[in-house]
Amino acid sequence: MINKDFLLKNKIAKRLYHDCAAALPVIDYHNHLSPSDIAEDRCFENLTELWVAHDPYKHRAMRIAGVPEALITGDCDPRTKFDSWAASFEKTAGGPLYHWSALELKRFFGIDKQLSSETADFIWEEVNEKLASPEYSAQSFLRKCNVETLCTSDLILDDLKNHREMQSSSMKATVLPSLRGDDILAVDSPGYLPWLKQLGERGRQSVNSYEDFCTALSVRLVDMDLCGCKLADHALDRFEYAAVTSSETATLFAKRLKSEALTDNEIVKLKSGILLWLAANYQMRGWTMQLHIGAQRYTSSRLRKLAGASGGYAAAGSCCDISMLCTFLDYLESRDALPNTILYTLNPEDSAAFAILTGSYAEDGVQGKIQFGPAWWYNDHIMGMRNHFETLANYGLLSSFIGMTTDSRSLLSLSRHEYFRRILCNTLGQWVAADIMPDEPALLERLVKKICYTNSKEYFFRG
Amino acid sequence: MINKDFLLKNKIAKRLYHDCAAALPVIDYHNHLSPSDIAEDRCFENLTELWVAHDPYKHRAMRIAGVPEALITGDCDPRTKFDSWAASFEKTAGGPLYHWSALELKRFFGIDKQLSSETADFIWEEVNEKLASPEYSAQSFLRKCNVETLCTSDLILDDLKNHREMQSSSMKATVLPSLRGDDILAVDSPGYLPWLKQLGERGRQSVNSYEDFCTALSVRLVDMDLCGCKLADHALDRFEYAAVTSSETATLFAKRLKSEALTDNEIVKLKSGILLWLAANYQMRGWTMQLHIGAQRYTSSRLRKLAGASGGYAAAGSCCDISMLCTFLDYLESRDALPNTILYTLNPEDSAAFAILTGSYAEDGVQGKIQFGPAWWYNDHIMGMRNHFETLANYGLLSSFIGMTTDSRSLLSLSRHEYFRRILCNTLGQWVAADIMPDEPALLERLVKKICYTNSKEYFFRG
Amino acid sequence: MINKDFLLKNKIAKRLYHDCAAALPVIDYHNHLSPSDIAEDRCFENLTELWVAHDPYKHRAMRIAGVPEALITGDCDPRTKFDSWAASFEKTAGGPLYHWSALELKRFFGIDKQLSSETADFIWEEVNEKLASPEYSAQSFLRKCNVETLCTSDLILDDLKNHREMQSSSMKATVLPSLRGDDILAVDSPGYLPWLKQLGERGRQSVNSYEDFCTALSVRLVDMDLCGCKLADHALDRFEYAAVTSSETATLFAKRLKSEALTDNEIVKLKSGILLWLAANYQMRGWTMQLHIGAQRYTSSRLRKLAGASGGYAAAGSCCDISMLCTFLDYLESRDALPNTILYTLNPEDSAAFAILTGSYAEDGVQGKIQFGPAWWYNDHIMGMRNHFETLANYGLLSSFIGMTTDSRSLLSLSRHEYFRRILCNTLGQWVAADIMPDEPALLERLVKKICYTNSKEYFFRG
Repeated sequence: MINKDFLLKNKIAKRLYHDCAAALPVIDYHNHLSPSDIAEDRCFENLTELWVAHDPYKHRAMRIAGVPEALITGDCDPRTKFDSWAASFEKTAGGPLYHWSALELKRFFGIDKQLSSETADFIWEEVNEKLASPEYSAQSFLRKCNVETLCTSDLILDDLKNHREMQSSSMKATVLPSLRGDDILAVDSPGYLPWLKQLGERGRQSVNSYEDFCTALSVRLVDMDLCGCKLADHALDRFEYAAVTSSETATLFAKRLKSEALTDNEIVKLKSGILLWLAANYQMRGWTMQLHIGAQRYTSSRLRKLAGASGGYAAAGSCCDISMLCTFLDYLESRDALPNTILYTLNPEDSAAFAILTGSYAEDGVQGKIQFGPAWWYNDHIMGMRNHFETLANYGLLSSFIGMTTDSRSLLSLSRHEYFRRILCNTLGQWVAADIMPDEPALLERLVKKICYTNSKEYFFRG
Repeated sequence: MINKDFLLKNKIAKRLYHDCAAALPVIDYHNHLSPSDIAEDRCFENLTELWVAHDPYKHRAMRIAGVPEALITGDCDPRTKFDSWAASFEKTAGGPLYHWSALELKRFFGIDKQLSSETADFIWEEVNEKLASPEYSAQSFLRKCNVETLCTSDLILDDLKNHREMQSSSMKATVLPSLRGDDILAVDSPGYLPWLKQLGERGRQSVNSYEDFCTALSVRLVDMDLCGCKLADHALDRFEYAAVTSSETATLFAKRLKSEALTDNEIVKLKSGILLWLAANYQMRGWTMQLHIGAQRYTSSRLRKLAGASGGYAAAGSCCDISMLCTFLDYLESRDALPNTILYTLNPEDSAAFAILTGSYAEDGVQGKIQFGPAWWYNDHIMGMRNHFETLANYGLLSSFIGMTTDSRSLLSLSRHEYFRRILCNTLGQWVAADIMPDEPALLERLVKKICYTNSKEYFFRG
Repeated sequence: MINKDFLLKNKIAKRLYHDCAAALPVIDYHNHLSPSDIAEDRCFENLTELWVAHDPYKHRAMRIAGVPEALITGDCDPRTKFDSWAASFEKTAGGPLYHWSALELKRFFGIDKQLSSETADFIWEEVNEKLASPEYSAQSFLRKCNVETLCTSDLILDDLKNHREMQSSSMKATVLPSLRGDDILAVDSPGYLPWLKQLGERGRQSVNSYEDFCTALSVRLVDMDLCGCKLADHALDRFEYAAVTSSETATLFAKRLKSEALTDNEIVKLKSGILLWLAANYQMRGWTMQLHIGAQRYTSSRLRKLAGASGGYAAAGSCCDISMLCTFLDYLESRDALPNTILYTLNPEDSAAFAILTGSYAEDGVQGKIQFGPAWWYNDHIMGMRNHFETLANYGLLSSFIGMTTDSRSLLSLSRHEYFRRILCNTLGQWVAADIMPDEPALLERLVKKICYTNSKEYFFRG
């Protein structure tokens, strides 16, 4: 099904994709790719290692289909895991996994056959043979996808060694770190004090007070900034915020340092205080703050034990408390401390409210100060993207949208930029046919170019 | 409008429906049909009795249209009620009642005319004449709809006499009881103690403690199980759950037995404890647990008095607390006590979250352990079903879906399986045209067969 | 793009619009037009004054696009503001502002060119020349849109002088006041006591008790009623209600009069008590009560200072608590005090629940007693209207819908009735093609006429 005009259903859609979108470079501003895999230009042992063993989406689909967990995440050999997936593949038809997988086999390995138990032998051998060649190393996937810039997710304790290596290498793509800040806010985790000790070491300031904490964090933020970091990201499953002064934050932090018990409300306050400090620092450095809202990560304890914290069994939580979110953003804006902000939601029922929020805070000269982030995680499919385009166009400005990022752990997912672009061009083509969008070729091409490339370039890297 | 290709808008849709879906037997695994009507093979006096007098959907539509309540649920004669409906019918155009009604008149009585004040005489006479013949008895409607299995909703106090009769009869369809468990959880009802007394009698263990209660319930569950029961069902309008141990449950139950006042929180705990016990028992017996979530049944006190508890004026409540639902399911799974579970919601804004939940709990070898139940009640229409197919396909696995059930009080509603199948086949046909679904005839036919028939057969009756 | 068949995509759509919808008179039953502008038949200095300077939708779009606030709401000259908008216009493509603006330029001024920096000179001069002529006065826009009746929003303290003038004038359109009741419920505002003093003066009863308050309000309600008022309206951003007796209300009101502090719960109770009193009075007078639910008006303090309370930066709040809303409506119905009620929501995720609520309360002989109000504010676009038609048709009765109102501050927005009618006719045409709607020309024309004109006429003005 992955032919030249895949997903392009009228002339305008085809023209926009082939003449404009297809050749644009890729900026993947948020993902969970491994910096060491890229830096070392890793080669993959086999298709399971590259494509199946670490993919929570596939694990999840197989579980729903009733495949025994042992054959998904168990100790069986790579070929058995591949066979589980091959036998399950047809069952994903109608959903994104079917498209993603077919597109990945086709684009990277030239495979046209539909994956199934019948074709498993052929595909396994064909792809593994290719993977043995250096032409199919980690960096090759970046080249094939025309990646210009790619931002990985890095902890504040990471040494960034891989990043420094890549920046002094001859790689065509620019690979930058971005801050994954969840451990900074994990004040209710039993591991927080040991983590603070490590932060003190990395941050060259042992942490005996909130002031020390901020100093150590600042040192690390500067380190990341020097390494090209332009974004930070926080997973705030249920967005909770309570107004708090920095002296209150310092007091609560001191209690935490002494392992005194904090009430639920004190924990929310302490987290809020630290997030305010971080946001202000992101703003000062010209970084973008990403908030990933609405996941329900605690579902099955059984699967958490078997498959780890990111094992593909998470759910979408309830809708976001918009009023609380506004209070947080307003506090920052009132103090000139609001960074460029991307709001992602896992619950598509937040879409309209998030798209509307893009018009509630602004900055002179900044296009799309508040972004409704691209269809995230379980929403990353045709329906989710269309919903995203529609809500943005109707409740915000589609033309200010910074476009796609994969948020993926898999190099092959970079082909989803193609998927996104086809869906975007097709949506625009359909809109022209419906009189929703004017039939102005130049206007449409400018729009496609902005959403696929120039908007994100300006938004993150104009500084 | 009910012609051969009703709702089938391209070649693929037509082929899938006519060559594959149309002839499949029907499994209606949850409805509120009267076991005695079927067992006695009741004939209906007139079209009002069969079609209008007991249909809350029609009553609701007439109310919105401004028809006086006396002409809807009042004491007037059957023909007057029929005329109210005939005059209102046109006003439902664009919605499901229009389709359902036209389909029912056509399929069961061969009526092609549109119902209206002008055609009321003709249709009234034509149908009533047919109803006088034994060819239009209750069981005839099952035969006309090719019903293989049908599960009614039965209270734990029901004697199941009708079911035993049917099972020893020569009826082609298998009619089974399923448990409607609302009275078991109605601890805050003033009638609970008298009900417990009856349970004690039926359950052959008078209820003087929580242990007695469980014993009596067990006896009845065994009785139902022996009669072929495979499902239970609870209406949990606002899903509320609080962690509770069985000894706490026993203590709270003892308080209730002594008519001591329980706090709101204690009521939630007591209900939670009983539901946990029930769920574990369903799991042990291989039953499926259905949770119907999100109705707001208390709206108009006036209409409740006039039209009874199920009089068609209920609303959809607020969205479900997904976190709480996860805690409940996780508790059960952690104790190997999670039965196959179907989650229905009346609020379509829960759709994505519920579809995502289907990937959060699983069991080796069980396809679709957690089901997002088919578009329920007010959602049972083209838009609701499409939304359901789309959310399942994109957030779960459409191929694991157990398909349609009517949840209806009316025998004629069995024709809604046809409605569902046409909508399914048309959706798939449209998806192929849009490249969402591969154009693989064999794959598509397997999918249709699974959703319309084999998935539910395996899910409920594999044991 | 605004050609004859704009948005009409099949033959049925075209026929319905051109033969039926286009020529129907307009009833705009809720808007924020200036009674004095209409009464004085104001002429507008230039296109900025008429079209840009006071339009929060355009301000919001420019802010998202990054236009400096000074060039939007600052002190710069009218032409500069127009140029900001002209340069931004293209960026709204795909959304409602693009359509609205193109339609307004075309219908009122015959402009076919797309607004841009290139065409700004031409359009500025062309339109300003026309505006200088009395043919382009305020009342001319009403005539051009075939307005039959128009209800402005008036405060209870307003003297209604403009309305009396208009009613004794030779204007073709009937312009009526309607009550904007927010200040009546603003018990938590610091300005409430001074406001009560003014109410006492206007209401010819100084307010020293709750009884006095009700007397003064009654006097004003009678004044408005005599002036033709048929609707009232309350903005209840987050719908909150607490059961309260009138004596409790009186006690709380007395506390407020003495400036004693009220708890949050007491404020909710006091507001609830006053709203119950108002609702009962609306019902008594045959007025319709409008509740505008779900806005989050407090977002950016900075923009509130710069652009005023209605400056275009509001957000949509969280979903409505349906259970609480039911309690309120039930209380009124139980006391025969429920007026015709229109429920609007800013959060489209409330749509299904609100559409379902239209079937939960009813009155003999009243069509559509509870209305799900037309797609409001940020929802007023193709997607929002389609969602509204779909939810109404599937969860309520589309045929009972009272149709479009602009809720706008701009005279040019009256052209949105044309926009609405085109979208309605196109939706119906598409539904016929999909077998959702029967292909019955007479039925379809009756439906269009009801929704565009006769339903609202009967609903508001039958008394």
